[in-house]
Amino acid sequence: MHFRKPLLTALVASLCASGAAVAQSNDPATLAKIRDAAMASDWPYQRLEDMTDLVGPRLSGSPGAAAAVEQVAEAMRKLGAKVTLQPVKVPHWVRGEEKAQLVEYTGRPKNVTQNVVLTALGGSSATPAAGLTAQVIVVRSFEELKERAADVKGRIVLFDVAFDQGMADRGLAGPAYGRGSAFRTRGPAMAAELGAAAALVRSVGGADYRVVHTGVTRLDENRRIPAAAVTAEDAMLIARLSKRGPVTMKLVLTPKTLPDADSFNVIADLPGTDKADEVVIVSGHLDSWDLATGANDDATGVTASMGVLETLKKLNLQPRRTIRMVAWMNEENGGKGGATYHQANRATLEKQFAAIESDNGAAGRTFGVLAGIRPQYEKLFAPLQAALLPIGAGVLQRRDVIGAGDLHALEADGVPSFLPLVDSSKYFDYHHTPADTFDKVQPQDLKSHTAVLATLAWYLANLDQPIGRAPEQFR
Amino acid sequence: MHFRKPLLTALVASLCASGAAVAQSNDPATLAKIRDAAMASDWPYQRLEDMTDLVGPRLSGSPGAAAAVEQVAEAMRKLGAKVTLQPVKVPHWVRGEEKAQLVEYTGRPKNVTQNVVLTALGGSSATPAAGLTAQVIVVRSFEELKERAADVKGRIVLFDVAFDQGMADRGLAGPAYGRGSAFRTRGPAMAAELGAAAALVRSVGGADYRVVHTGVTRLDENRRIPAAAVTAEDAMLIARLSKRGPVTMKLVLTPKTLPDADSFNVIADLPGTDKADEVVIVSGHLDSWDLATGANDDATGVTASMGVLETLKKLNLQPRRTIRMVAWMNEENGGKGGATYHQANRATLEKQFAAIESDNGAAGRTFGVLAGIRPQYEKLFAPLQAALLPIGAGVLQRRDVIGAGDLHALEADGVPSFLPLVDSSKYFDYHHTPADTFDKVQPQDLKSHTAVLATLAWYLANLDQPIGRAPEQFR
Repeated sequence: MHFRKPLLTALVASLCASGAAVAQSNDPATLAKIRDAAMASDWPYQRLEDMTDLVGPRLSGSPGAAAAVEQVAEAMRKLGAKVTLQPVKVPHWVRGEEKAQLVEYTGRPKNVTQNVVLTALGGSSATPAAGLTAQVIVVRSFEELKERAADVKGRIVLFDVAFDQGMADRGLAGPAYGRGSAFRTRGPAMAAELGAAAALVRSVGGADYRVVHTGVTRLDENRRIPAAAVTAEDAMLIARLSKRGPVTMKLVLTPKTLPDADSFNVIADLPGTDKADEVVIVSGHLDSWDLATGANDDATGVTASMGVLETLKKLNLQPRRTIRMVAWMNEENGGKGGATYHQANRATLEKQFAAIESDNGAAGRTFGVLAGIRPQYEKLFAPLQAALLPIGAGVLQRRDVIGAGDLHALEADGVPSFLPLVDSSKYFDYHHTPADTFDKVQPQDLKSHTAVLATLAWYLANLDQPIGRAPEQFR
Repeated sequence: MHFRKPLLTALVASLCASGAAVAQSNDPATLAKIRDAAMASDWPYQRLEDMTDLVGPRLSGSPGAAAAVEQVAEAMRKLGAKVTLQPVKVPHWVRGEEKAQLVEYTGRPKNVTQNVVLTALGGSSATPAAGLTAQVIVVRSFEELKERAADVKGRIVLFDVAFDQGMADRGLAGPAYGRGSAFRTRGPAMAAELGAAAALVRSVGGADYRVVHTGVTRLDENRRIPAAAVTAEDAMLIARLSKRGPVTMKLVLTPKTLPDADSFNVIADLPGTDKADEVVIVSGHLDSWDLATGANDDATGVTASMGVLETLKKLNLQPRRTIRMVAWMNEENGGKGGATYHQANRATLEKQFAAIESDNGAAGRTFGVLAGIRPQYEKLFAPLQAALLPIGAGVLQRRDVIGAGDLHALEADGVPSFLPLVDSSKYFDYHHTPADTFDKVQPQDLKSHTAVLATLAWYLANLDQPIGRAPEQFR
């Protein structure tokens, strides 16, 4: 197998291949140097500020997404990386007007209506411009929806399921989000199937500041309905009023789905030496939702990944394998970037040695690495863990369940995948809200996040041993 | 003086006056009974739900404010209280469209603009319907505004002063709010005087969820300009972009100031016995801002005050002095309710024995009483403190600085005033935002809040000794 070269041979080969470049090695001193250089650099934080302040929101197909492609490509060219723009055709959904009022309910005083704060879900269709008015039916589970199927036709279904912040506080933010977001992704389609006029979900997130959390919903192309997320407060209000009697809502949502747009994955290579044809991906996604500047979702992932190349360039370190920074397009509402890359490389996936993606933000401490590898390879990472321990990031945890956003197709086809482990207890307070902004990222958190990605990417790119393929159950 | 009756005479007089009613007394058993009855009652919380869920926002002049007057009056009539609607003429300001974009700044990519989240301040005038476009000038103090006076003409002034949450966390929420809100109340008028096209303030509050905090601004009638609060995040964005170069904003605000409207203070009396002509006010303000249902500002104050009468009625206790529940109108943008009451009673202010107002919400523990009395009367309250100690509310703190919202004119004319002491460290997260909603109030907090008001009101209404007039420095 092409991975099984003894260390010495590798070193000699690399020295020959790289000319004046420094020898590649996973020795502790080199790992420490990379880690410390990343910890000392403001460069990713400056790129984060550029991306969020100058470009702002970056929903697929928007001027912001196009500007972000240019901005990242330009920054990577400046570093001397080999930049490729990989064309990706993306959905182009545009938010419109969005407002709602409770116009009738038991106990409503004369002339009084209650405003409901909501935001359309990506993929929502539009109401008539003048709005639609219908009774709201509140359900708390898919089972309850099915039980009340006969009541759904012509009504507005509200899935009133609270995000489990307690789980998030106990370190289970991901599973809590998985449970909550199921109602957002699948609920509206189920309501549509039963003839609902529109569907609402309670915002999926832990904050209690009347904050809307948008996100994608998966509607059947032939059965699209208006769909929106109401704030937790508004969901609770509607649920309380529903206990008093029927509640009628007037709903106005005017989003548009335009023809698919041309966009790009930004790919920037730091070419390897003797194994240059093998690739270690380090990545984040460049698109964001439109309500905010997408600082933690996922400008941090992109700018920390960019920082990996900046760190190695600054240290004049050249890896054996090619380290490839990818800024994926369209993670949020289509996943076309990851799918396009997979499609383009599917004939030679054995050359995709490993892939890293950061998509859990850096709004908390990064404490290690989540590895989509088989058990027998875990021990290979002890030197990496030792190198990351001094910055509190020495944890290596194996992952048995597939699910790394843009890497999904690669993982399913066997590419080992790695995610940084981040304290995400606060992540879903801001995720997909208007509040996912630059100020939520502490410079120190982004530094250690970058240090983990840089040390990990380098380590993978210079490993002598094979790390096998993704766990069997990823297929 | 009419206060100086010995205890025995008072008891005899009260027994004679009250017929079948229970003897009035400040003995420990009676105080404990009142405290415990309030702690056991859900009634105020149910009124809070009615007020926030059924009526909702209650800005002066709105249908909600009118409905709230009816709702409170009806609930108090049901209790058997003597209800009076005191006419109050109130300002009638109505929010319109509000949006803003940064349309030019250094480093702006082609076709990109940044949305700014803001909300008009009460009293703001309107921009042209199509908006106004001007350069933003960022200042951090009144001094800086004066220094840069020559740059202000035709520009949009942004006061970028952060709320000091650290002070709030240390128990100094009020002073922190005082510092921050000075820019909101006075800043726009100062900017207008220098010829500004519009004025923006950074939202005054501690939350970091891109939340707007509205509030009143005091503009010269002849020099009104559009004025709005931007979120903390947007203020920081504009400040950062301003460091790169000039920032131009397009601003649309279309509020309207309509002719003054007819409204009311709701007054509900529990008549006293031998001193029925003397009054102890217990109150909150009925109006709220329009963005939320004003749960903590100030439905808690009103419903806890209502709960005082409910508690005493339930216990069949009749006070010596009349206990008067007042739901003030127009605290938020005019103070006309308090002023009207003061005007109506100014000839006989010595009969206003004491006045309580709750206007710091109940989004935290109530731990005692803030008393606007002179030092020599402090010791009179030891029995009250002893009665409140078991519910963690035994603190009595004297207040030397005037400032109890609707009581201001009464205080200035010598009426001793009392405020509940509440942990307000979170209060300004929600204050004047869309998130000041029912769910922010814990039932237990409202119970202990009501218990403090009820025990205090009763204690004041049955005191044998005089408590003097408000501190000299209140005048």
